[in-house]
Amino acid sequence: MVNPKIWTAALVVIGDEILSGRTQDKNIAQIAAWLNVQGIRLAEVRVVADVAERIGEAVTVLMASNDYLFTTGGIGPTHDDITVDSIAAALGLAVVVHPDARATLERYYETRGGITEARLRMARVPDGADLIPNRMSGAPGIRLGKLFILAGVPHITAGMLDALTGTLEGGRPLVSVTIGGFVPESEVADLLGATEKAHEGVVIGSYPFFREGRIGANFVIRSEEQERAEACAAVLGEQLAAQGYEMVAGGI
Amino acid sequence: MVNPKIWTAALVVIGDEILSGRTQDKNIAQIAAWLNVQGIRLAEVRVVADVAERIGEAVTVLMASNDYLFTTGGIGPTHDDITVDSIAAALGLAVVVHPDARATLERYYETRGGITEARLRMARVPDGADLIPNRMSGAPGIRLGKLFILAGVPHITAGMLDALTGTLEGGRPLVSVTIGGFVPESEVADLLGATEKAHEGVVIGSYPFFREGRIGANFVIRSEEQERAEACAAVLGEQLAAQGYEMVAGGI
Repeated sequence: MVNPKIWTAALVVIGDEILSGRTQDKNIAQIAAWLNVQGIRLAEVRVVADVAERIGEAVTVLMASNDYLFTTGGIGPTHDDITVDSIAAALGLAVVVHPDARATLERYYETRGGITEARLRMARVPDGADLIPNRMSGAPGIRLGKLFILAGVPHITAGMLDALTGTLEGGRPLVSVTIGGFVPESEVADLLGATEKAHEGVVIGSYPFFREGRIGANFVIRSEEQERAEACAAVLGEQLAAQGYEMVAGGI
Repeated sequence: MVNPKIWTAALVVIGDEILSGRTQDKNIAQIAAWLNVQGIRLAEVRVVADVAERIGEAVTVLMASNDYLFTTGGIGPTHDDITVDSIAAALGLAVVVHPDARATLERYYETRGGITEARLRMARVPDGADLIPNRMSGAPGIRLGKLFILAGVPHITAGMLDALTGTLEGGRPLVSVTIGGFVPESEVADLLGATEKAHEGVVIGSYPFFREGRIGANFVIRSEEQERAEACAAVLGEQLAAQGYEMVAGGI
């Protein structure tokens, strides 16, 4: 059997507000989960500052090594929104006003004070790009081949992802089965490693926690095949139970 | 006046659980905020999978271009904890058992079932490394010159940061002043850009939001000098008020 192609994506999160600690990023988890449903693995994330060279470098490097590249942030109307210009410069493309984006923004701002030079900034795209609908506010996202330029505000990002759902070619989604219990991972480390080795096509992740004054861990068994993940989880659960640990399906 | 040195750090977040969307990362914001208090800027973050080559590459590249490098995750006792081995391999160092870490773990596990081979994994460090105390659980963090290898579980990471507080040389912390209001950023984009230009040594970030059915934005004025940030915020606030917007100090 030929191994099926694994589709990968990378994400560039653009924004001083993440790097300063002011804003807690929510887009990494949101995009990661959405990609997985599309059968695409998030392979790497870079968070870069609002600096044209940093944005351009991250985008070109990660585009070269992944099937898809997503960016979030920096596509609004203000002076610190430099994503489109930075990416266009890095790819050697001109920046043009997209006629459909201009029409959308004109309609959106018709009852909101009218279009202005600043608002028109949000219609600017790298030459050749298509638009990604944004039902939340006037400014669209941008698609340029394998590159997807999304908003940074999480609920607007979510709307753009929604518009892209089902339109990207992917492979088989990674499924996961989780079991958890008040078991110190250091007591069962050998068992985890041996169980992973004994089950082809599965990866076991061990995620410790400290709750209600007790130490425990969740074990996440990932596979491209539901059956393999479930079979491995069943065996692991039995062996942990045999050692006296009470395990909870779905994790704690 | 010679410009003072700006101290920078990069962060490598190691873990499939972040890239799968299972776990919402909290360490980027936590470490960013902590670094800022130390007078160090977080310049870039990479999130990489539990793959030795990915970890090694990210660490070596980012160490070369920053004053400090932090990693989180992958230093526990299980088979998926490969951070120490990956970094040591990338740096061409042997992995050794640190005698103090061994002693600490032996004490910690004395009343918890005793030391085992798996638990001893947490005493392994790249040759030449020092330990970072961990008051939360037995396993220490690791310091190797400008490189800091921290735990991935956020409250344990926090304890290790706490142990490092005040021990790293930095510059002047970046201060920020925030004002916010129900003002659509696209209406004031030109004013923001002009205000930033008119105030040397400040950067204005504009962060839109949608709340209580209304559109608004917070404007964050950052500078190395409190007075500059405050002066710029005062001018911006006055000008926005003159346009009829009610602004709230500290942001909304």
